[in-house]
Amino acid sequence: MTTSCNGVIVWFTGLSGAGKSTIASRVFENLVSHGIKSEVLDGDVVRQHISRGLGFSREDRNENIRRIGFVAELLARNGVVVLVSAISPYRAIRDEIRHTSAASFVEVYVSAPLDVCEQRDPKGLYRKALSGELRQVTGIDDPYEPPIGPEITCPTHEEPVEASVDRVLRTLWPLLSSKSAG
Amino acid sequence: MTTSCNGVIVWFTGLSGAGKSTIASRVFENLVSHGIKSEVLDGDVVRQHISRGLGFSREDRNENIRRIGFVAELLARNGVVVLVSAISPYRAIRDEIRHTSAASFVEVYVSAPLDVCEQRDPKGLYRKALSGELRQVTGIDDPYEPPIGPEITCPTHEEPVEASVDRVLRTLWPLLSSKSAG
Repeated sequence: MTTSCNGVIVWFTGLSGAGKSTIASRVFENLVSHGIKSEVLDGDVVRQHISRGLGFSREDRNENIRRIGFVAELLARNGVVVLVSAISPYRAIRDEIRHTSAASFVEVYVSAPLDVCEQRDPKGLYRKALSGELRQVTGIDDPYEPPIGPEITCPTHEEPVEASVDRVLRTLWPLLSSKSAG
Repeated sequence: MTTSCNGVIVWFTGLSGAGKSTIASRVFENLVSHGIKSEVLDGDVVRQHISRGLGFSREDRNENIRRIGFVAELLARNGVVVLVSAISPYRAIRDEIRHTSAASFVEVYVSAPLDVCEQRDPKGLYRKALSGELRQVTGIDDPYEPPIGPEITCPTHEEPVEASVDRVLRTLWPLLSSKSAG
């Protein structure tokens, strides 16, 4: 078995507002500009398509993540670089995807802390959580378990987005070159 | 816009036991042996992965088909020939997938009639339906709406599986050649 057709899954995890989707979309643009097949699987978007009816309990979040993992695997084994951008708060399910995937798995911890994410609050989730309008918001009344040994950490509260994007791309390039040479 | 990167979705529809999965798996083997990227999305298998919790009402069946369509589209736009094998009993939802897809869409009606499928009964569905053990079985107490203008019809009650496989492949080849030339 070679790794030449197994693709890559890059899994961005972190709080809402940490910058996962921003980095993923920049990485996507860069890959596509180099003729590399890539897809962004955004947690919120995928939820609308294949997880309508699921809520935000631990069980439902994990089911949603398993479904994203299933789709990511199908794409990756056809040579697509799959960029998953999803809070994916539970460590065990992220590790399950990593260990069951035949693709190279790169976990990217987008590590901006809660106070920074609360200030950014791009979706207004934290405001709604603090006003009592919304429950089960990760970081407020729902847990977030950071990765223990992520391949990459992007401290977006301490560096510009370009630095994070470059770090991800520098990790990806060797994986992609070995693929095309494989 | 060229069609060169849009891939193809081949959608096998028909009663349980009509021969959809058999034809799809033979077509898959043939394509892969020619170095063409392909995936079979089997309705039952996909259901376990992304549609746990959905039942067999018209609404739930359609939601399941929409999810398969979403996954098929992601694969097809990355150049994969996607072979969907699913009863997909409702015409409107099949047509919705066809019209919203950017990929070439080839509908294959696997047309063995109910009495033949009942005799084959590979999953024991008809036996269970007739004994009252199972409800909402397509063809028995749930409707099946055949396509009006399918690209291909495979009358598996009147021809060997090889003839059906050949007919599908003969339709696919021109689509694939124009892709690689595109």
